[in-house]
Amino acid sequence: MQTIETLLNHKTIRNYKSDPIDEKTLNTILDAGFRASTTGNMQVYSVIVTKDEEKRKELCKLHFGQKMVEQAPVLLTFCADFNRFNKWCEQRKAEPGYDNFLSFFTAAIDALLVSQNVAVAAEAHNLGICYLGTTTYQADKLVDFFNLPKGVVPVTTLVVGYPNENPEQVDRLPHKGVVHQETYDDYSAADIDDIYREKENLPLTAQLLEENQLETLAQIFTQKRYTKKDNIHFSNVFMKVLKDQGFMNNA
Amino acid sequence: MQTIETLLNHKTIRNYKSDPIDEKTLNTILDAGFRASTTGNMQVYSVIVTKDEEKRKELCKLHFGQKMVEQAPVLLTFCADFNRFNKWCEQRKAEPGYDNFLSFFTAAIDALLVSQNVAVAAEAHNLGICYLGTTTYQADKLVDFFNLPKGVVPVTTLVVGYPNENPEQVDRLPHKGVVHQETYDDYSAADIDDIYREKENLPLTAQLLEENQLETLAQIFTQKRYTKKDNIHFSNVFMKVLKDQGFMNNA
Repeated sequence: MQTIETLLNHKTIRNYKSDPIDEKTLNTILDAGFRASTTGNMQVYSVIVTKDEEKRKELCKLHFGQKMVEQAPVLLTFCADFNRFNKWCEQRKAEPGYDNFLSFFTAAIDALLVSQNVAVAAEAHNLGICYLGTTTYQADKLVDFFNLPKGVVPVTTLVVGYPNENPEQVDRLPHKGVVHQETYDDYSAADIDDIYREKENLPLTAQLLEENQLETLAQIFTQKRYTKKDNIHFSNVFMKVLKDQGFMNNA
Repeated sequence: MQTIETLLNHKTIRNYKSDPIDEKTLNTILDAGFRASTTGNMQVYSVIVTKDEEKRKELCKLHFGQKMVEQAPVLLTFCADFNRFNKWCEQRKAEPGYDNFLSFFTAAIDALLVSQNVAVAAEAHNLGICYLGTTTYQADKLVDFFNLPKGVVPVTTLVVGYPNENPEQVDRLPHKGVVHQETYDDYSAADIDDIYREKENLPLTAQLLEENQLETLAQIFTQKRYTKKDNIHFSNVFMKVLKDQGFMNNA
């Protein structure tokens, strides 16, 4: 079944050809995105398409200099967006009550479901994709860059283009590690050993430990990739963006 | 192309047959879910499968009595989950720094991308799905129901089963209403009229206005479906869950 194969064959692509994506293909992909479920059919999201080369270079810098950001022909920035809906309410004698955290999270869910449909649709067209986690870290700068009004917050970005590499598919935890039957069955120490064994025994893990001169793979995450210090800093950046963009008036 | 058709043909299903989903199909759908992109390949999510009839009845009550919740054979509750990852770090001489808002949002993105892959995979198997927005409203009660430890927060739920209805596909806003080229082009009053015209002229809208005795469709959203009072209440419920589950230690 082609749909299942598309999903099961997903690989993140980090090296792209400069070939453009034709307008018809891009529109089909976006339309497939907009068919994702949306709360109350409100569609409280927006997508910003970046193709301009200068803008891609600037965005590359904002996204921590990841080269693919300027290399790929299209960037799609997905935003939680109540601005449009609020404006509509105000023009229709209705008083919007969407300046709160729940509304932000509702809009973020909407935007993220669209992004994943777009990712799947792109791969079905032999395009490659990469999600940029830097979107939330740099949300304040992206608000400025895209001139986002109140009610709009960027939540994720997809790099989209034709792959210039064919990497191996990466590992995933065993099914039993992430699925719970009926209730949350908390993990024993033995469960944790079991769930992470395959990942820890990969040649890639040995290579990373050697490169980083660390004893465990978990230390690479806590000391190098996602440190407490960075997480706290970017938590406060993102919380401030939510406040500045008008989503924290429930407090 | 089958994948694009699957995406473009999505309809939310609210009426299900009681037919069970065989284990092989359910596992394929979940595996397709787990192939979604995940931050740093951390897979900071869990899925709780509910099949038990008594549990579905109880969940039906928690999800505001929506009948399909007990009618459909399977419910999938998607959780942001740093509990497993934290336990792994602690067993591997690594100090996790994931008790903050950024980590919650990262894990929520992970969980939501999985949920959308699962939705697409389910529809490719002729199953129907419905997202339950009530998951965030009732997150505190779901934490108790599923016995979720610190580091775990439910973010969405999918009802999955064989459709017992064949509804018309619902409307979406025109493409230009949700896509911005290069920068966020804020909406003029005329843009808003234009974007919402088709929706406002639907027979369904006339019917809703008649039923609710209101003047505009927007008022149905602000006064009936998603009121400021409810949004503030559920914002505070959800923020408290984030705090209680150990994700707000950046403040």
